[in-house]
Amino acid sequence: MLIVKKFGGTSVANKERIFNVAKRIVEDYKKGNEVVVVLSAMGKQTDILLDMVKDINPKASKREIDMLLTTGEQTSVALMAMALDALGVPAISLNAFQVAMHTTSTYGNSRLKRIDTERILNELENKRVVVVTGFQGVNKLDDYTTLGRGGSDTTAVALAAALHADACEIYTDVDGVYTGDPRLVNNARKLKEITYDEMLEMASLGAGVLHNRSVEMAKKYSVPLVVRSSLNNSEGTMVKEEIKMEKMLVSGVASDANAARISVIGLEDQPGVAFKLFHHLARHDVNVDIILQSIGRDGTKDISFTVNKDDLEEAVATLERHRQGSLKCQKIDVERNVAKVSIVGAGMMSNAGIAAKMFEALYDVGVNIKMISTSEIRVTVLIDDEHLNKAINAVHDKFFTSRL
Amino acid sequence: MLIVKKFGGTSVANKERIFNVAKRIVEDYKKGNEVVVVLSAMGKQTDILLDMVKDINPKASKREIDMLLTTGEQTSVALMAMALDALGVPAISLNAFQVAMHTTSTYGNSRLKRIDTERILNELENKRVVVVTGFQGVNKLDDYTTLGRGGSDTTAVALAAALHADACEIYTDVDGVYTGDPRLVNNARKLKEITYDEMLEMASLGAGVLHNRSVEMAKKYSVPLVVRSSLNNSEGTMVKEEIKMEKMLVSGVASDANAARISVIGLEDQPGVAFKLFHHLARHDVNVDIILQSIGRDGTKDISFTVNKDDLEEAVATLERHRQGSLKCQKIDVERNVAKVSIVGAGMMSNAGIAAKMFEALYDVGVNIKMISTSEIRVTVLIDDEHLNKAINAVHDKFFTSRL
Repeated sequence: MLIVKKFGGTSVANKERIFNVAKRIVEDYKKGNEVVVVLSAMGKQTDILLDMVKDINPKASKREIDMLLTTGEQTSVALMAMALDALGVPAISLNAFQVAMHTTSTYGNSRLKRIDTERILNELENKRVVVVTGFQGVNKLDDYTTLGRGGSDTTAVALAAALHADACEIYTDVDGVYTGDPRLVNNARKLKEITYDEMLEMASLGAGVLHNRSVEMAKKYSVPLVVRSSLNNSEGTMVKEEIKMEKMLVSGVASDANAARISVIGLEDQPGVAFKLFHHLARHDVNVDIILQSIGRDGTKDISFTVNKDDLEEAVATLERHRQGSLKCQKIDVERNVAKVSIVGAGMMSNAGIAAKMFEALYDVGVNIKMISTSEIRVTVLIDDEHLNKAINAVHDKFFTSRL
Repeated sequence: MLIVKKFGGTSVANKERIFNVAKRIVEDYKKGNEVVVVLSAMGKQTDILLDMVKDINPKASKREIDMLLTTGEQTSVALMAMALDALGVPAISLNAFQVAMHTTSTYGNSRLKRIDTERILNELENKRVVVVTGFQGVNKLDDYTTLGRGGSDTTAVALAAALHADACEIYTDVDGVYTGDPRLVNNARKLKEITYDEMLEMASLGAGVLHNRSVEMAKKYSVPLVVRSSLNNSEGTMVKEEIKMEKMLVSGVASDANAARISVIGLEDQPGVAFKLFHHLARHDVNVDIILQSIGRDGTKDISFTVNKDDLEEAVATLERHRQGSLKCQKIDVERNVAKVSIVGAGMMSNAGIAAKMFEALYDVGVNIKMISTSEIRVTVLIDDEHLNKAINAVHDKFFTSRL
């Protein structure tokens, strides 16, 4: 078997943890597997380097920031190769130049385009464990680039795809994907399997186990993903195309407390109004989530939508700037204390009763629904954030407790 | 003018120093010069990384150690490019892959073979300051290598040669080459000029301003070298082929307290004895310095030589191992408390009285000479190390005080 194993920064934060990870790698190697390891920078190293940037030049170019950040993973792969060697297993570390990992030109948030596999395959042939820097690539100028948030996951999945690996194991500080965030949902339990699409919805809803881009890539190349804990040996969650177990209508409950609602009230009821509104926001990189349009009074209409709390000020400022120009409206309302609760499940598209069951759960605990948005495999509601905890537990238990 | 400027680790040890160096670079750039900067790792970073190696795997492969160490210079060049940018000067950092710096295969102590200049010339063309990692290279396997002690000096000189630079400035914590080590010689004064050959003799005698390999390379490619201080603006010392100023017989006095003498007494007086002796030592990487052979009693001969104190135990152990085999002798004597004093000067080869003048200076202060060794531009004597301070001051003042 060819296995790609990815470990995050906390898993390699110090000598003890490096050796813990090394021992897991040795186990797989000793069973006769070919092992490729993808690592992030140690512990808080990336943050430390970013603090140096702030100190030297807060407006530093992304090109130079990437040049600096890529030292982080190079440090961890070299140390891991040394640790494996100390345990008697031949290993070699490779950075993005040595692999090579070709990306788009963008610094700070580039995309992987192509991975050369020759060097890795040669090293595997020579019975070595290959330890590869995650998060980083090289663009056509021969400059370092980085892949942005969750970049090491993407590196691992892309390597697994390029090498036609038999498994791609993502090690995190949780031991799999849960029916709900265990920190919030009391009765959350671990899923044995989940589909790529469900995982995508979960990730975008703040479940945060895997970054969306890595899941998208896994789906595209049918990479068999496993999410496991680096702290224990429990089995983790398989992410794949179709799940074979008894078909579950709902796979999980996700929540996002980092939402805010903006209502633009009294817009002229003309073609192009919605276009203008969201065009202005897009130009300022404000991502908009749930959108709801309703008919207002006196031939006007109202548009409400949610944004990330971090983008709220930018969004409102943008709208206010255009209010006297192309965007005529009576009022811009902001609601900061809201949260999203979602249910996700590949099975729900053929079952109309799912959404109603969710709304019933919320009604049972007296939570008012402010907005509703649905996709084929997801139902999301917006509620007051003070009710978040009560709401997700109620929704979760409605779908899962009976089967616990 | 195209100027290559090299700064060591202490010169870039923190934010304040990085900006001090950056300001010097900006001065040259603003005068219309093309500037290439070579940097070492910040402060004690290389030592910190080597401590990590000791902690993780004291027997780590040199290949992985180089992979780890090269992060040091990459960090300093990225931060310097950011600092220059903060001062309004466009800059770009390049590592050994990006330049590219091709070396021999050896890890830990490789030699530069070839430097691609295309990328650097393009960046200079675009009016950028180019900040290059010192000390590191890439071998034919696409692995990082490091150049060993003084490696960043070598990088700077090699770059200056490849780019046909008009000047190569090496910034250190001293402000030039002195007639003697200012910490030891009270009346030492700074030289305006010195020849490559003199500098080589000075360096190998422990003057330690420039590493031998970089001076050899400068001589080979006639690179105009300047040794300057990174702390002040004084003019420094030019190192070049021929010096034009009033011909000085002696350029400087050097000393080395890190010497030990080994005497092998009563060797058979047969052909091949000296060969065997030094062959055994060479196989154990023991470098031998002054050698003196004399006729012993009863048809035997004695061979004395000096080694670095650090190599003394290894040297004696090696000789003892072979004493019963191919290397028959009566006795092996060791003298640990010795030191070398040398005078160096391109002018001395045509002047027989120089050595005598040195011996007179030592006689004047009652210092006994234990061994003598000479080259065309150097006279070295071995003395008791307790007399070192007295001896070098006496020798120095004999040649220089009259001209102070």
